[in-house]
Amino acid sequence: MQTNNDKSTQLFLGIDGGGSKCKAVLMNGSGETLGVGLAGPANPTHSVAQAIESISCAAKLALADARLPQEQLSQLVAGVGLAGVNLPKYFQKIEDWQHPFAAMFLTTDLHIACLGAHDGHDGAVVITGTGSCGYALVNGQQTMVGAHGFPHGDKGSGAWLGLQAVQKTLKALDGLIAGSTLPERLLSQLGCQSDVELVEAVVGKNANFYARFAGLVFDAADQGDPIAMAIVAEGAGYIRSVIERLRKVNPPRISMIGGLTGLYANWLDEAISAQVQPAIKPPEVGAVLFAQQQIQQQPANRAS
Amino acid sequence: MQTNNDKSTQLFLGIDGGGSKCKAVLMNGSGETLGVGLAGPANPTHSVAQAIESISCAAKLALADARLPQEQLSQLVAGVGLAGVNLPKYFQKIEDWQHPFAAMFLTTDLHIACLGAHDGHDGAVVITGTGSCGYALVNGQQTMVGAHGFPHGDKGSGAWLGLQAVQKTLKALDGLIAGSTLPERLLSQLGCQSDVELVEAVVGKNANFYARFAGLVFDAADQGDPIAMAIVAEGAGYIRSVIERLRKVNPPRISMIGGLTGLYANWLDEAISAQVQPAIKPPEVGAVLFAQQQIQQQPANRAS
Repeated sequence: MQTNNDKSTQLFLGIDGGGSKCKAVLMNGSGETLGVGLAGPANPTHSVAQAIESISCAAKLALADARLPQEQLSQLVAGVGLAGVNLPKYFQKIEDWQHPFAAMFLTTDLHIACLGAHDGHDGAVVITGTGSCGYALVNGQQTMVGAHGFPHGDKGSGAWLGLQAVQKTLKALDGLIAGSTLPERLLSQLGCQSDVELVEAVVGKNANFYARFAGLVFDAADQGDPIAMAIVAEGAGYIRSVIERLRKVNPPRISMIGGLTGLYANWLDEAISAQVQPAIKPPEVGAVLFAQQQIQQQPANRAS
Repeated sequence: MQTNNDKSTQLFLGIDGGGSKCKAVLMNGSGETLGVGLAGPANPTHSVAQAIESISCAAKLALADARLPQEQLSQLVAGVGLAGVNLPKYFQKIEDWQHPFAAMFLTTDLHIACLGAHDGHDGAVVITGTGSCGYALVNGQQTMVGAHGFPHGDKGSGAWLGLQAVQKTLKALDGLIAGSTLPERLLSQLGCQSDVELVEAVVGKNANFYARFAGLVFDAADQGDPIAMAIVAEGAGYIRSVIERLRKVNPPRISMIGGLTGLYANWLDEAISAQVQPAIKPPEVGAVLFAQQQIQQQPANRAS
């Protein structure tokens, strides 16, 4: 490894890669942000080539944002947190990448999110965005809940909320459950006139598509729509059960992060909300903290 | 149309095409079966080209089975019932096909299943196989319930049962619900050792994949497994609501058909079971009945 051991000059790259985007942050050894970059999807279970391309692109943009030359890529110590690399096959595919950095330390997006949320210390996070999951890191032990993907997992997530809305709308249009404003809202957002058009619009769609309806479901629920309220309450019940599961490993702090955090706030009972504290730093900074921890822990000759 | 108007010599082809296979039956005007054929998938929403190929192949096999020359294709009046053609776009794509028959009459797989089940008369059917749906034909009026596809619809279907089993297994492995024999059975059937391997095995899989676990879920439920019993009971509740919805249009008969019919028999309460009567003829014969009805109803110059 050709990294510079002088903490004041070594630069770190933090990468947070998921199904829709890849964030990069460039920091110095003192934890100051020098530049940021944003690129496309970086979930290797969807496409390893795309994930690698997005990581490279976000890293170069962060260097450019810091007004540093692209050649500096080879000087950076990179911490990379990616969705999907909890699956060993995809972890290995990224590990096998001939990356352009001085060193790369790879872990899951959950790990870096948790490190960021608690500024490098032990804690737990519940993430609700397109997907959903819980994660705790306590005394070096990881606990993972959910993070299974859609549609077989990810209950309470944006994709799950959207799929529930479509399922309930079709049942209401079939006359199998009482109607509400939700079916009309959903058909309207999709520009559909009937159940047949709705089915044509959703056939074969993925998690990102369904997650677009999460806001619509929360809006309807907040306005008292009974179908939407039942969906959100079921999702909130799942989030509560994940938090309760994570509390069993005694994390010093618990944070909720992801795009739905604010939307769920009104739907979690006070006993649960009182246990949740704000995230201190974002996941991409958690990736930098991860890289710094790895460097401190390992023998000098192990990184590559 | 060059069909032979002499009922005793005109031959009819009945086609029942779905997501996994295409059945053909060759009958004479007196309703005697001369030959049958079986070919691959014929759901045009998956592939129009494959659907056309499967229909042609099944038809030729039925002719061969009847020891008739392939040139007779151009003499046949075909009734064709296909999954997916409730969507107008796919109905039109099959209508536009330069088919090899003397005439072709196209309708949905539900329509021919209902005609077959009630030997050409009014009635209703509830179909539970890979998918699920209800359909009634009363006084020329069609009523359709479900038939929306997976995973946004098809509750109670084989695919739905399998997905529920995977979802519940992942929750049990996460410690979010009490375990039972179901998770072990499912992991064993898939040759998986852990939740991570299970997720790798199911990522991106379709309805046909999930439907393979329907038997496992019914087995476990019949042996008192609480998770499986809850899944099957919820599916049976949906089937019940579909039957009750169809009863509102007063069908003279109601039949249950499809691969799960026998498995659900123990799970429907007696009040519902008492309303269900056996199907008289299979869907592909319903397709022949449909073609015969269409010929009787139309002016001589309309078919093509």
